[in-house]
Parts: sequence; C-alpha cells; structure tokens
Amino acid sequence: MNDAASLVPFFNPAGVVILGATQNPTKLGFVLTRNLAQCGYRGAVHFVNPGGGQYRDHPFHRRVADVPDPVDLAMLLIPAPAVPQALTECGQRGIRAVIIASGGFRETGPAGAELEETCLTIAQKYQMRLIGPNCIGLLDTHLPLDTTFLPPPGPTPGDVAFISHSGAICAAVTDWARGQGFGLSRLISLGNQADVCETDMLAPVAADSDTRVITLYLEGVRDGRRFVAEAAQAARQKPLIVLKVGRSESGRRAVASHTGALAGQESALEAAFRRAGVLRADTSEALFDWARALAWCAPPAGRGVAVLTNAGGPGITAADALEGYGLYLADLQPATQQALVAMLPPAASTRNPVDMLASATPQDYADALHLLLADPGVHSVLVIVPPPLMSAAGGVARALIPLIHTGGKPVVVALMGERMIQEAVEHFRSERIPEYRFPERAASALAVLVQRAEFLAREETRPGPVTGVDPAGAQAILNELQLQPGEFLPQKGVQGLLAAYGIATPPAALARTAAEAVALAQGMGFPVALKIAAPDVVHKSDVGGLLLNLTSPEAVSLGFAMLLDRVQAARPGATIWGATVQKMIPAGQEVIVGCVQDPQFGPVLMFGSGGVEVEGLQDVAFALAPPTADEVDYLLAQTWAGRKLAGYRSLPPADEAAVRQVLVRLGQLAADFPALAEIEINPLRVLPAGAGAVALDVRARLRS
Amino acid sequence: MNDAASLVPFFNPAGVVILGATQNPTKLGFVLTRNLAQCGYRGAVHFVNPGGGQYRDHPFHRRVADVPDPVDLAMLLIPAPAVPQALTECGQRGIRAVIIASGGFRETGPAGAELEETCLTIAQKYQMRLIGPNCIGLLDTHLPLDTTFLPPPGPTPGDVAFISHSGAICAAVTDWARGQGFGLSRLISLGNQADVCETDMLAPVAADSDTRVITLYLEGVRDGRRFVAEAAQAARQKPLIVLKVGRSESGRRAVASHTGALAGQESALEAAFRRAGVLRADTSEALFDWARALAWCAPPAGRGVAVLTNAGGPGITAADALEGYGLYLADLQPATQQALVAMLPPAASTRNPVDMLASATPQDYADALHLLLADPGVHSVLVIVPPPLMSAAGGVARALIPLIHTGGKPVVVALMGERMIQEAVEHFRSERIPEYRFPERAASALAVLVQRAEFLAREETRPGPVTGVDPAGAQAILNELQLQPGEFLPQKGVQGLLAAYGIATPPAALARTAAEAVALAQGMGFPVALKIAAPDVVHKSDVGGLLLNLTSPEAVSLGFAMLLDRVQAARPGATIWGATVQKMIPAGQEVIVGCVQDPQFGPVLMFGSGGVEVEGLQDVAFALAPPTADEVDYLLAQTWAGRKLAGYRSLPPADEAAVRQVLVRLGQLAADFPALAEIEINPLRVLPAGAGAVALDVRARLRS
Repeated sequence: MNDAASLVPFFNPAGVVILGATQNPTKLGFVLTRNLAQCGYRGAVHFVNPGGGQYRDHPFHRRVADVPDPVDLAMLLIPAPAVPQALTECGQRGIRAVIIASGGFRETGPAGAELEETCLTIAQKYQMRLIGPNCIGLLDTHLPLDTTFLPPPGPTPGDVAFISHSGAICAAVTDWARGQGFGLSRLISLGNQADVCETDMLAPVAADSDTRVITLYLEGVRDGRRFVAEAAQAARQKPLIVLKVGRSESGRRAVASHTGALAGQESALEAAFRRAGVLRADTSEALFDWARALAWCAPPAGRGVAVLTNAGGPGITAADALEGYGLYLADLQPATQQALVAMLPPAASTRNPVDMLASATPQDYADALHLLLADPGVHSVLVIVPPPLMSAAGGVARALIPLIHTGGKPVVVALMGERMIQEAVEHFRSERIPEYRFPERAASALAVLVQRAEFLAREETRPGPVTGVDPAGAQAILNELQLQPGEFLPQKGVQGLLAAYGIATPPAALARTAAEAVALAQGMGFPVALKIAAPDVVHKSDVGGLLLNLTSPEAVSLGFAMLLDRVQAARPGATIWGATVQKMIPAGQEVIVGCVQDPQFGPVLMFGSGGVEVEGLQDVAFALAPPTADEVDYLLAQTWAGRKLAGYRSLPPADEAAVRQVLVRLGQLAADFPALAEIEINPLRVLPAGAGAVALDVRARLRS
Repeated sequence: MNDAASLVPFFNPAGVVILGATQNPTKLGFVLTRNLAQCGYRGAVHFVNPGGGQYRDHPFHRRVADVPDPVDLAMLLIPAPAVPQALTECGQRGIRAVIIASGGFRETGPAGAELEETCLTIAQKYQMRLIGPNCIGLLDTHLPLDTTFLPPPGPTPGDVAFISHSGAICAAVTDWARGQGFGLSRLISLGNQADVCETDMLAPVAADSDTRVITLYLEGVRDGRRFVAEAAQAARQKPLIVLKVGRSESGRRAVASHTGALAGQESALEAAFRRAGVLRADTSEALFDWARALAWCAPPAGRGVAVLTNAGGPGITAADALEGYGLYLADLQPATQQALVAMLPPAASTRNPVDMLASATPQDYADALHLLLADPGVHSVLVIVPPPLMSAAGGVARALIPLIHTGGKPVVVALMGERMIQEAVEHFRSERIPEYRFPERAASALAVLVQRAEFLAREETRPGPVTGVDPAGAQAILNELQLQPGEFLPQKGVQGLLAAYGIATPPAALARTAAEAVALAQGMGFPVALKIAAPDVVHKSDVGGLLLNLTSPEAVSLGFAMLLDRVQAARPGATIWGATVQKMIPAGQEVIVGCVQDPQFGPVLMFGSGGVEVEGLQDVAFALAPPTADEVDYLLAQTWAGRKLAGYRSLPPADEAAVRQVLVRLGQLAADFPALAEIEINPLRVLPAGAGAVALDVRARLRS
C-alpha cells in the first residue's frame, strides 16, 4: 500500500485513541497517556484500558468498540500477544491508522516475526496503515500532536523533521536539539516497519509547511530504487540529511569480478544518495549542525567565503577547514580592502581572512561585516568571535544581527568558548542565525549550504534513452545459451550481448585445436592474441592463460599448445574449451567498466583504472546504472583513469566520448537484464580520440 | 640560547614585577595587575608605573630600579617604543626572564621587526630570556602564578598544559576547558617568539609533575629537526597533541621532480610528527576531546573494544566509528556471553555491541560492564547512555563509576543528549571519566588512547648506521663536477653518487656520436636502451627522448640519429650532450624513490608507484630521511607499490629487501648532502626476490 491518502490520519487525525492507557505513573503507558492528554491536540482524544480508570478528566474506555466518534488513529502500547485482537477491534471500529509501540515482534526472533506478519495481515484486511511495531510513536509540534512516550520535556516547536529507524535515539535527539537551540517540526519513529517505511514518509513530510529540513536516521533502505525516486522528489523541495549507520561491509559474498569485489553495500548507497541529492552526514553531530544551517540560511550563490575574525589563529583554522571542503577564500575587491584599511589598525590584516585584531569592538565587527557582505566576490561569511578580552560577546552579537538579517548572504558564526559566550549564543539562536563552538564546525555548515545550493542549481537529469541497442537481440542470445543460474557466459555469448548494445569487441573466435587457431588467425590477420577458454578460470593471467602479439602461423600453433599445457598444469582437471583467437588492437589507454546487481539498489556501475591491480590501486568510482550525464561526468572526474583520458604528459589523449558511450550502454544492458549478476569489461582499450574503444576482455555471470 | 636552566624563572620565579601596572579598570594592564595580585602566588609580587599609584595593598613603584629583592621575572605591557629602555632597566636590575605582552613588533611590519631585533639584542646582552612580544603571558594553576591578562575566571586547575602560537585563542581554550569539565596545568602564549619558541617549552612542560598531557596550537615550527628531537623526548614522557593550522600548501615553488611536486609542507610535517610520536588533532574539538581521555585513562592493552548500550542504533554508530579508526569490536568469550544471556531479556543482543534494550536499569549497566571488563578479549569499553525513558542518567553514572575506577581498563562514555543527561555529566567529570555527547567522539577518544598505547609499546628507533657508503667518494664526485647552484647533475655524476651509496644502476655511458653509441652497446652487450642526454629536458619520454630494447648495432645507430632529431624538433635550441647508452635490465616491478630538502624539516623521502603517472595515481608516502626501520615499514605498508612487492596474482614477488636498502641509502645520501635539492629514482626496477633493484633513471639537482 503506497497510497498517500491512507497516511493522512497519522498526520492529521480526526480523533486519537490510546490502547494501553494507564494511571500508574511507573508504567510507560502513563507517559504516553499524559503526553497525549497534555500536548494541546485540538481533536478528540480517547483512552482505553480493560480495567477502566481515568487520567485527569479523561475516563478510560474498557474496549475500543466503546470509543465514540471521531477516531481514526490508534496508538497501541499493550503486550505483544494482545496486539492482533486489538488490531481486529480497531479495524472493526473503523480506525484507519495504527501505531504499534509495543515490542516483542520481529526483533525477538521467528515467533515474533510471525506475530508481526499476523498483524500486517489483519491491518490489510481492514485497510489500516501501520507504523511500528517496536517504536516510540509520532509527534507534530505544530499541529500539535504527541503520541510518543518520550520523557518530558518534549521537543521545542521548530522546523526540522526527524524520521528514525531507531526509537532509542529519539529522546537524545530531542535533547540535543534543545541543547543546540533549535526545534523540531515532526518526529517519527518507524520501528520494525511492518507496513510504513522510511520511503513512505518522505512525501508527506516534504509537503509539511512547518518543516524546512528533513533529517533521517537510517539503518537500511527497504526498496532502494523507490527510495531514490521518492528522496529525489523530496530533496527538490526540502534539504534531506541522512545519517546512515552500519557502514561496515557485510562483505564475504562470493564474487567473480573486480567490480563485485569492490562494489560493496556502501558504494551502492553512496551512488544512490548522490543521485537522489541526499546530504549524507558523517556523524550525529554533523546531522544537527547542518540541519540548523539549512533551516535558517538561504543557499549561497557560490563557493567564495569571507572569514571575519579578531584573532589570526582561528581564522587560519577556518580557512583550512573551508578549503578542505572545496570552498575558497574570496578575493576581496580593491574597494573593500581600501575601506577595511581605512577603518582598521595598521597591523590588522585586510586580506581574507580579515583579522581585525583583539582590539576590535562590536562596531568594528559590524562595519567590517557590512563591507564584506557588499563585496560581490563574497558569497557567504564566517564570523569568528572568541571571548573578547575587554567586552562581552553579547555586544558583538547585537551589532551583527541586523546586518545578517538584511545582508542577503548566509552568515554563520563561530562563537569560540563555552560559558563566556553564552549571552551571544542566546542572541544568535533566538534570531535563527547558526552559531557553532568551533570554527571547523561552522565551516562544515557553510560547506553543506554550498552543496545544497549547487544541487538546486543543477537541473534534474535522468538517464536518457539509449539509441542503437537491441534488447530483443540480447534476450535471444541469452535464451539460446540456456545457462544455469550462477553460470558464466561463454565468450561468444558475452560478445554478442555487447554487440547488441553497441559496444565494440575485437574480432575473436574460439579455436578447439591448434589448426583451427591458425586458420582463424589467418582469417583476421596478424598479429593476434590467444586466451585460454576455460569457464572456471577467472583470472586468465594468473595461470599464464594469455599470449599476446603472435605474428605468425607458427607462433599461433606453438602458443596454442603451450597455453593448454600451462593451464592444465596450474588447474588440473579444469574444463578447457580451447583458446580464443583475437585480433590485436592498437595501443591506447586502458580502463575497467563493470556492473553488478546490488541487492538493495539494483545495477551499480563501476569505472576506473583496470588491469590486474584494480583492487590494489582502488582508483574506481561508482554510480547507479544506467548513469545520468552528471553521473558519467562524476565517474570520469573522480578517477585518475577518467582524468587522464584527456592526455597527460607523454600519454596521448584518448577517446573520452567512446568511454562515455560504453558507460551508458553497459549500464543500460545491466538494467535491462537483471539476471546478469556481474558483467565486467577489463580492460576496455580506449583508442586515440575519434577511434573508439574496444572491450578486450569481458566476463559475465548469471545470478545464482 | 637553549639552556634549560635559563628558563626556570618563567616557571618558578623568586619574584615577579609587572611593568605597565595600572589602577584604571578600562585598561588591559588592570586585568594583568589584578590577575597577578589575586592569583595566590606565594613569591614576591611587584608593580611598576611611572605615575605611581597602587592596587589594593600593592603600591606601584615608579621605576624598575626601585623594586626590592627578590625579583627575577618581569612582565611588560607598555607601549612598544618604550620596551627597549624598560628591557635595559630590567637587565640592569638583574632580572633574568621577561615576558613582553605588548604588540607593535614584527607583526606590524619592517619597523616593528627592527624594534623586535633591538629587544632581542638587549636581552642577550643581559643574558635574559624573552617570551613574546605580542603574547598573552604565562599561567601555572598549581604554583599558582598568573602573568596573563586573560579575562576572569581563569582556568580551573587541572592536568592539561596548553602551549600556543595564538594569544587570541587562549581565552577560548580556557572557556572550552571549563565547559568540557577539565582543567589546565599551564597555559603559555608564545607570541612572536623573538627568543623562546615552542620547542624550548617542551622539556620544561614535560617535566612538570602537575601536567599529564601537553597540547599545542602551532602555526609553524621554527627549527624542524630540533622540534622532532625535543618532541620525541617529551612524547615518551607525556602525550603530546598538536593542532597545526595553516594546512594549505604555499606550493608554487619551482620543482623538477615528481617528489618535489608531491612533497609539500604538509607531507614533511606529517612525517616529522610521525617520527616524534606527536598526536595530530584534525580539529580544535578533537584536541580537547583527546586531552581529557589521555589525561584520565590508562593506555589500553589492545584494539579490542566492547560497546555497551541500551539502544541498537547508537551502538552501530559507535561500531562504525571505531572500525573507521582501525579498532575492532572484541569477540566476547562464551562465558561472557552466557552470563549476559542469563541477565538480559531474550530480545537483547549479547554479542558486541551488547544492546541491553531500553529497559536496562543502572544495575543492568553495572552488571554488564562488570562482565565486559572481566573478558580478556576486551581492552577498553565504550558505554552509551541515551536519556533513559523512565529513570535518570545520573543513576547509571553512579552505578558505573566504582567499576570504572577498579576495572583496570579504559572506559569512555557517550552521554547522548544535552540537558537531560547533565547530572550524569557532572558525576563522570568529577570522577575524571571522559564523557562525550556523541558516540563518534567517544570512539575518537578510544582511538587516540590506542594510538598512544601503541606508540609507547614501540621501541624508540633511530635511523641505524648505514654500512657500505662512501661519503668522501660522493663528495669527490660533487667537487669534480663544479656545478652551479640549481644545476642538474649529469647522468654520470648521479650514477657515481648512487654507486658511492651502494645503489645499483645499469651499465651506462654517454655517447656523443652514433658510432660511440654502437661501440658502447657492443661493450655492454645487447639489448640496450638509448636515452637523450640533455640537461634541460626534464621528462625524457614527453619528447620521445627514450628508445628501449635495441637489439643490434644498426638499431643503435639509427636510434641515435632519430633521438636527436626528435628532441631537437620538440625543444629547438635545447642543449644536447648526446645519448646515454644503457644495458636493458630484466622485467620486474617498478617504484619511485625520491628525496627533497624541506626548508623546515630537511631531507624528506618519498616512496610509491612510479612511472609517468606518479602525480595522477598519488600512491606515495613520505618519511623523514634517513628513515628508521619503522618508517621503512610504514612507507611499504602505506602504498600499493609497497604492498605488491610481496606479489599479487600473476605479479611475481619482488626483492623487497633491496627496496628497503635503497630507501635507507638514498635517504642517507640526501641527509649527507643537503646541497642536493632533489634526487629521484624513477623507476627503480625491482627484480625477483634476491636479485636486487636497479635505478633505471635518476635525476638530481643542486639547491638554487
């Protein structure tokens, strides 16, 4: 069920009922009861407890059937075994949305998982949507509505939404937000996600007019491609910041290609987040540092930053951090510099970072900021305020705030210290100006503002249609091969697939005998290469199964015998079909292009430096397949293999356009044939500009 | 002057005098006066103001000559032009140590720099040591003594020393430390360092019994090798954490080698810090996060960490961060797991991270921590405490503290939240147990404890003596060449230098004519290579100046003509000496080994993947030259070029021992001849194990 309308009762119910209400203050149900009764919700609230009772002026009903209209959202905090019956009663009562807070389901093992399935079946029978089980609940500070059992005080109303796979983190998040001086709009704890998952929540939260930034704490993604589609839509409306935990690779899966060995869960996730425009926070701290900046600041028009300080050292620290994030110190215009020279003492630095020296007054801060905001090369400003020696940081804050509000450019503040700058902290917070204790964190906030601005400035690109591909032809080849799951495709089959998708391979054919090899070589013209054809030999060169540059019939004949000898010696008993005779291709650059099917995100494309040392050099990058034009740019820019296509010293330029074509075409092939678990071209020989690129060696394997 | 005894009056003066004392509370001198008068210093304090006056019961003397005994330390906060005369009077009065707080010196330009020189000359005349000018002063919380004009309240007494090139940061540091719940032992602001510099302060602070950790804020290092020597000694006694600002490369210097292009100021600094055992903090925040952990925790016995939590998500976050730092989650012993199973609910996770679920009580935390501390595979523990739903975090803190004190293994705590966990924060701080707001920061603290433990466990290694080198012979070669500054060494000269240091080069000689080339080739045996010999052609292959694998006299003769043709066409007018004839060397792996003279740290060695793509692949690492055995290990482990020497797939193992020899020998050569600005072997052909390594191409240039 993905019907957006079915989610409405979670966010704007006509009436809410709690099953598991209690007047016993030592129970979690009591916190739930009190939070709902006192949250200021303007709709109907009801409470159910089979034993009766009441909370303040709310009498408890004994059964959900007794609850009067209106009621369309139920929150259950009752023992797990009692949940199915309660759900049925909710369905019969006409309730349309249920939050199951109770634990004791999938997280406890197979019996719990079965119970959870039962609940889902009941919900579907009555067309009810479910959040949970095993969650904290849902909270909207603006409606307002609180169906959580979070300990008081609940979050301050604000404009940052938080969607979480972890319930336990919600109390900490509420408290962090309060400590950092910002509020939450909605808090949604998803628990086991029997029905509603993280992806379902993106559209409704992005549509919420009280939310300016969406933050997510994710432990995984249920349906990768659907998440990408929904997140991309949401990210166009509101910044989406994700803290994804569980980076460590599960790894250990059987792989037969370099791409498979390198394309872990993390690479696929990074590629997915990049396509969707998701901002990925590295740490919990960054998640909230960024949220404030994104909620409160307009996107800067560029990467040029001015640093304003009264102390040299922290100014350099900020500059280091900014440059580390790819931002740069703006070159100030001569007029700006002259005005700064006129107002500041001779020993001050009027270049960027602008160091006014320790004697700077609040008025100096304001005058200098005014000049910097007016400089067209300055797109944002980082102001540094250590505890002033002879005045109070509060005065600096008061002098700066009006300018920041009218300056039209984002300004973030590093208020260095802790207790001595508290007054300034409070001033800036109440005016929604992001402040940080350390210059590096302020720099990170500016960097994320720039990242967001650049995302919004880029047009949304989707993978374009690929012309000159023949999926039906490729399908026919696959059908004809009649392969078993997990099997490798024979060389001829792989070449056929590439040909159907417009990727060139060298003339090649299988020879079962030396005589056949000689005849084939004479047919294609010398020089040729011989490669062992043995389905179980993954890395041919490891066993000496490759001979290059054979220039005569004799060399081919001898070479054929030698190849078989070597491989039989290295892998006794291996099936050997013979040897592939292949025309030698002119010299050029060599790269690797591969695709694997990620269980979560589908086909993922890898590009980089090829050869046998792929895993050693690790000069590779990843994108979802088929790639957009932006993603192709990224793959080339991110790798040395891609950058050197333009030529480097004695290395002549190579056909970059042909590489772009291969990336798109191989990506499309993998997307069209999910049955291909891995397909890898290594190397792709890239000829001089205009001369194309040829897949010298290709391996492909079906899913097991 | 580096005499340690001369620094004693700074840290333990018999009497202190302030020049520039004032009773005017709007002046900085008032803060200075008040701080000294009220700091509790038990020695004599005196104040000088030409206009007289007094502060409380301290009358101001009109001249320093009037100050009675004892007095050996003076603090000057008077206008810069008046400083020389005051210094002279201090010298005449017998004062041995002076802090000049006043600004208006080198930081203001050439006139100020001259004034600073004058001050230094006066100080030297009277054998006085100087701190400053342009600094905040010096403070010892235990003596106690405060000669700073830091705004009150000053730092809490504690065990972290702070030495700073920035005065402005000192107030912030004092405030950060207070906010983070730790105290300072000494605070030293060095200002312009006319005399005393950061390196001078290391030994006296390391010897201070009240200091457990030394933190430094550095903007540069005055004498690189002396810093390394002093820091290495200090680091054996106390952890040394440095925040070095100004990462951005000055760059832009003329370089003629790959090593020169890649070995920036940062690489040299990293190499120096590695040798000295300095812990380098990436951010200001990390500096203090680490200081607390290092001051309060014993070094762990290994990298195995147990994570104890009542919430799954933050446990995974911590695990991610720990693994990112190279630590690992300890495998718990079966007995530990069984005991955890017995005490925890069925849905809890008794594997590491141990997730006790939200219902965990303070007693559960204590019982579980007890089990984890007793597990021999666990070397340290990270405990995560979100705001508990039904109890207070303070209770958890009280339950854990006795165990942590007696457990014998470091424990750090992530108290997630801000206000709701304040009581627990206070408990842990008062018991000197490091706590952090975010699991990632707690993980970073454990990582630095491990780093410190591993440093202490490693024996101190110094570069060993290198046998079989002939510095006198090398010197004779250099003398004979009669080169100008900045000039490149001719091929024969470079080969002579390498030969003198036991590094093999292929038989090679310069041919000025084709006939000479043929004769030389016949002498050494075919195949041979021809390389253009032209002093101004830096990258031979860029201009086609290289021919390989010439197998006959005819090929050599033709090749010689072709080479000259090509290079003349590519570089008209370039000086061409002829061509070098070189015997071809068997196939093998190829690496680059280079050395440059860093202006700060002397010779720096680079190792990595060679060829023409060095800057593109960036598979290189750096060490001070000559390297210690540890540093050679590091260079090989850090690069793919080093790791693959052991063999990789079809790539046979190569002579790693020979590479180690070349690293040591080239490093020694560079150290023995500082006149060599750059010397680079690219490639070094590494033959199969036991067969050695041969420097195929070498370039060296004298300093300009």
